[in-house]
Amino acid sequence: MAVSFELIKQCSKTGARAGKLYTPHGVFETPIFMPVGTQATVKAMTPDELKAMGAGIILSNTYHLFLRPGHELVAEAGGLHGFMHWDRGILTDSGGFQVFSLGSLRKISEEGVAFRSHIDGSKQFLSPEKATEVQMALGADIIMAFDECVPYPAEYDYARQSTERTTRWAERCKRAHARKDQALFGIIQGGMYKELRTASVRDLVSLDFPGYAIGGLSVGEPKPLMYEMLEHTVPQLPARKPRYLMGVGTPDCLVEGVMYGIDMFDCVFPTRVARNGTAMTASGRLVVKNAEFARDFRPLDMDCDCYTCRNFSRAYIRHLLKSEEILGLRLTTIHNLHFLLRFMGKMRQAIMEDRFPAFRQEFWDKYQGH
Amino acid sequence: MAVSFELIKQCSKTGARAGKLYTPHGVFETPIFMPVGTQATVKAMTPDELKAMGAGIILSNTYHLFLRPGHELVAEAGGLHGFMHWDRGILTDSGGFQVFSLGSLRKISEEGVAFRSHIDGSKQFLSPEKATEVQMALGADIIMAFDECVPYPAEYDYARQSTERTTRWAERCKRAHARKDQALFGIIQGGMYKELRTASVRDLVSLDFPGYAIGGLSVGEPKPLMYEMLEHTVPQLPARKPRYLMGVGTPDCLVEGVMYGIDMFDCVFPTRVARNGTAMTASGRLVVKNAEFARDFRPLDMDCDCYTCRNFSRAYIRHLLKSEEILGLRLTTIHNLHFLLRFMGKMRQAIMEDRFPAFRQEFWDKYQGH
Ligand SMILES: [Zn+2]
Ligand SMILES: [Zn+2]
Repeated sequence: MAVSFELIKQCSKTGARAGKLYTPHGVFETPIFMPVGTQATVKAMTPDELKAMGAGIILSNTYHLFLRPGHELVAEAGGLHGFMHWDRGILTDSGGFQVFSLGSLRKISEEGVAFRSHIDGSKQFLSPEKATEVQMALGADIIMAFDECVPYPAEYDYARQSTERTTRWAERCKRAHARKDQALFGIIQGGMYKELRTASVRDLVSLDFPGYAIGGLSVGEPKPLMYEMLEHTVPQLPARKPRYLMGVGTPDCLVEGVMYGIDMFDCVFPTRVARNGTAMTASGRLVVKNAEFARDFRPLDMDCDCYTCRNFSRAYIRHLLKSEEILGLRLTTIHNLHFLLRFMGKMRQAIMEDRFPAFRQEFWDKYQGH
Repeated sequence: MAVSFELIKQCSKTGARAGKLYTPHGVFETPIFMPVGTQATVKAMTPDELKAMGAGIILSNTYHLFLRPGHELVAEAGGLHGFMHWDRGILTDSGGFQVFSLGSLRKISEEGVAFRSHIDGSKQFLSPEKATEVQMALGADIIMAFDECVPYPAEYDYARQSTERTTRWAERCKRAHARKDQALFGIIQGGMYKELRTASVRDLVSLDFPGYAIGGLSVGEPKPLMYEMLEHTVPQLPARKPRYLMGVGTPDCLVEGVMYGIDMFDCVFPTRVARNGTAMTASGRLVVKNAEFARDFRPLDMDCDCYTCRNFSRAYIRHLLKSEEILGLRLTTIHNLHFLLRFMGKMRQAIMEDRFPAFRQEFWDKYQGH
């Protein structure tokens, strides 16, 4: 098996758990946050900077790489690992989320999705088979089944039909998948309907994937509704398989996701807000671009030991951002990723010591502006 | 003396020479190329990356820092060194070049130059005294006298009057300068008129600066004319003082500048063309954005051992640049600066071994597209 999961510790009071994810490119401790490298690069970072801060798995986007530079070119370069010089884990999404987001530029059928490239307007087609072929060429350790992320809000009938199609597509992905050195994960959908989530879990688990993602959350619904769906869905998933909550990366949602039993997360949030001049801290967001920091010679985060916080002041970073200097967003990106990876490490530590509920309480006591 | 120069070796056939520049932030071997960090950052680079590739002195721009974030703020941060976390050498220009370039936005008088900020249109004034005060606050190791860079072409009378004013301003800068831990260099002007260059050297040398820059070259004149002016001017400068040719940073001009006896250079060229997707190599420029490199999995430069060339392919860098990813221009910037710094090191080595003319010949045999 390309990827396996070892459950190391289960919280005695919540669903939180610590584990190890075994992949062809290393063993990674969970819960894990996966930085997003959409176009075969985590924006503004080198692979070596990511390694230095302890990043284990990164996510890259099939839709983007399919269109540019093309999966055949990436395969020629030795797959994504060789192309981007990254020897740790990689997960690719299926492209489903992006093509469905194209709105009027795409047309869905049972066969797949016809769409126009956002880059040059060219006609393109992705199907379960094609998305799997592309992901096999990209060569990530973990690849995802081609699904539709049910939008929010969605009518029951639409959500049901879409979820059933996602299941049929998951079967086709499984049949098309032929690389023993990579794992294909199924994606649970079902919108905000518990019975559809239950049906999705039942159908996908019967296909026996080596891991399961929960899709269709963090798509605009209120956070309590997301938590409700997690509380309902996660316990139905097999305990011995890794669970991946897609598109979640704010500290509050990470804590709650972990509490419900999620092992893996990805999100553009830390890198995107970094480029907008926002630093993540244990007490919430710090908008370093604000005038109040012009003469503040303290680090972004007094509790942080990242490269940025060890060497540069808020005043300097603010100057760089105001001056539109690349180093400004490099420094905020480094800090945010380091902060989140360390945050995940602390959660894991708390789980290992069976004090996750106390960790969660302390987190909420400090955290503001969620 | 804050800064002193030791002449180590003189080429037996040309004006080329190797030396050591002693500063409060280290001793640097010459000839030296100084990367430009206009806004207190060498674009796209961290200070540690610069150190790792052996950069010794960087240049920063008084005009830009005066307007943003302001020299008082930089002084509060511990000067430029503390503000930007750089513990090696810094040279600041005087701001003269930038304010004179503002065209209709500036008004020149004997007192100084009134101008409007390019950032917010606010009224500003720089004079020899003010430029010196600002540079004292910034705290670079080497600062420059406030001058007018005579444009090209310029009428004789204009060039003469401007050069004489630059001399008067140099005297005022010297009187205003009161930091013993930094060196104030004079700037030779004179346009393309040999007798004005001679007069400028005579007048400035009589003021006994610890180093001399040659300004007003590389401003659009044909290269042979620049070389002619160097051949005329450099030998008149005192041998025991460092000589700095401003705004020059292409390999061909560096080789020729060194041949005429220049010790220090700065230029935005390597970093600017890097951001446009051009890599510097011993055989000339490589425009990695070009389609021919789409499937070229070789490094930018087969002879280079920089971080970029050790780890990434032309195909990947081209993909990053086409996708407007920051890592793309980070990687080209790293390569270009590394290439130039290593190039300077090779020149110095050739001078030390008294084989500079052969080095120069080999360079010209390979170099194309100057
Ligand atoms: Zn930090
Ligand atoms: Zn290189």
